[in-house]
Amino acid sequence: MQSSANSHTLRARFETWLERERRQLQFRLEAALPGRREYPQKLHAAMRDAVLSGGKRLRPLLCRAAAEAVRGRPQAAAWAPAVAVELLHAYSLIHDDLPALDNDDWRRGRPTCHKAYGETTAILAGDGLQALAFAQLAAARPPVRARALLVELAQAAGTPRGMVGGQMADMLAPGERATPARLAYVHRHKTGAVICAAAVMGGIAAGANPSQLQRLRRFGAEIGLAFQIVDDLLDLEGDPAALGKTAGKDRRQNKLTYPSLYGHQASIAAARRLERAAFRALADFGAAAEPLRQLAGRMVHRRA
Amino acid sequence: MQSSANSHTLRARFETWLERERRQLQFRLEAALPGRREYPQKLHAAMRDAVLSGGKRLRPLLCRAAAEAVRGRPQAAAWAPAVAVELLHAYSLIHDDLPALDNDDWRRGRPTCHKAYGETTAILAGDGLQALAFAQLAAARPPVRARALLVELAQAAGTPRGMVGGQMADMLAPGERATPARLAYVHRHKTGAVICAAAVMGGIAAGANPSQLQRLRRFGAEIGLAFQIVDDLLDLEGDPAALGKTAGKDRRQNKLTYPSLYGHQASIAAARRLERAAFRALADFGAAAEPLRQLAGRMVHRRA
Repeated sequence: MQSSANSHTLRARFETWLERERRQLQFRLEAALPGRREYPQKLHAAMRDAVLSGGKRLRPLLCRAAAEAVRGRPQAAAWAPAVAVELLHAYSLIHDDLPALDNDDWRRGRPTCHKAYGETTAILAGDGLQALAFAQLAAARPPVRARALLVELAQAAGTPRGMVGGQMADMLAPGERATPARLAYVHRHKTGAVICAAAVMGGIAAGANPSQLQRLRRFGAEIGLAFQIVDDLLDLEGDPAALGKTAGKDRRQNKLTYPSLYGHQASIAAARRLERAAFRALADFGAAAEPLRQLAGRMVHRRA
Repeated sequence: MQSSANSHTLRARFETWLERERRQLQFRLEAALPGRREYPQKLHAAMRDAVLSGGKRLRPLLCRAAAEAVRGRPQAAAWAPAVAVELLHAYSLIHDDLPALDNDDWRRGRPTCHKAYGETTAILAGDGLQALAFAQLAAARPPVRARALLVELAQAAGTPRGMVGGQMADMLAPGERATPARLAYVHRHKTGAVICAAAVMGGIAAGANPSQLQRLRRFGAEIGLAFQIVDDLLDLEGDPAALGKTAGKDRRQNKLTYPSLYGHQASIAAARRLERAAFRALADFGAAAEPLRQLAGRMVHRRA
């Protein structure tokens, strides 16, 4: 274990890393999106607002940090999948918030896309962002890596082994029996698949070898599940101002959550166990994986 | 011009080509889709129904025929983009039919996806099919072509230079002034972009040189626009039984169409002019482009 002074230095270094990465990411997201003045402007305004108006940027940061873990320094090649995964995430939030899905009016403290722009625009903005996410992968260097990134992102985005499958299972849950198998499917796929893909794509972009990719995949799977369990706990306990979205929705919508199936204490214990397993998967990366470790820590120990 | 006996032989040969290609395509679409028994089954049933329950398969056939035009014989490599473009098309129909977009209850003589499965499933089935479409491109051979195909499909699917931009402009039209520029944008992008990409991707998969790709792109752009003009004309004149969808909807929804802006006769003349231009673009391909010519002819001279 690190001494407290050492851990303080690591955190300070990580803050510098975070700020630099987030600033560059914002710039690259801006550049990747269609211009606000380009026709049809309303569609592009909706897409830009959804992507540029905040968010923790966890997925692209995971991607960047994973590339750094493999090569020991920032990897320009990892920007393509980092931008892609954030665009994909933004699309998924727009569609998740729609009346026919989670029916949310607030996101990050602002009206959701369909509240601000109407449902037609929200559906199309999500569709357009998904296409734009895949388009980013073509910028991968060397070009041959685009194919491996495409496999990873498409699987994590789709069904049955990705986000859309998980989202569907989550929507089915109220009418179906709560079982550990169903809960595991929802949690592994709804959020976990894209979080895991973010880490793996960072590795691919940095030219990781198969053993490194396998460890990044294990890390991503464990931390992705831990993240979703913490999400469930925050929905129960969280205060809406900090969350920027409506709290307590899971229970009202009778959603299948970790605390509802296993209880509060067991859920906290599970998240900690997964966090430790995620850290073990990174052991062999040494100091280069420090940003990845710091990110993982924040994903589990957060208040919103 | 061909003699009538010669033209009869060409049509008969094309029928054989069509039947073989459609049968193989059906088989490959089935194999690409998640199984009906795989969890979450309802999502996968919706995706399978949307893709497997018919349709003219114009886009994948264009892709296959373009590859054949380049190489002079069927190109196994062109299956990946052919399957991809049909999955993309199926997703676009599901989302276009949603209540917040065209609000259609019937498609190909059957209830639309949201009528049969509900809106939640329809949104997610469309999202999943888009991801699956991009996933197909990873199967391209040699793998390095996956990147060029990705650029083509992502641009044609997105905005401002693709389908989602065109669909948005089409939805905006009732509230905005009808101008030739706006109509051209809608028609070139809503349907034309993906039709054009289908032909170009066939060329890429077959290893076409830049000059061949340029001619396929010109062909695709002209025939794509002709196709949409004929679509507008059929919506005015067509009988719903042959169309398998509701006729006369454009006028009731006050959609911007070629006949509404330029009149009936001028629209027919424009479609014929575009058809001739499309054929000119294929001149240098010789006999190998016969399936492509036959397909183009059917896209313009059709009743549904």
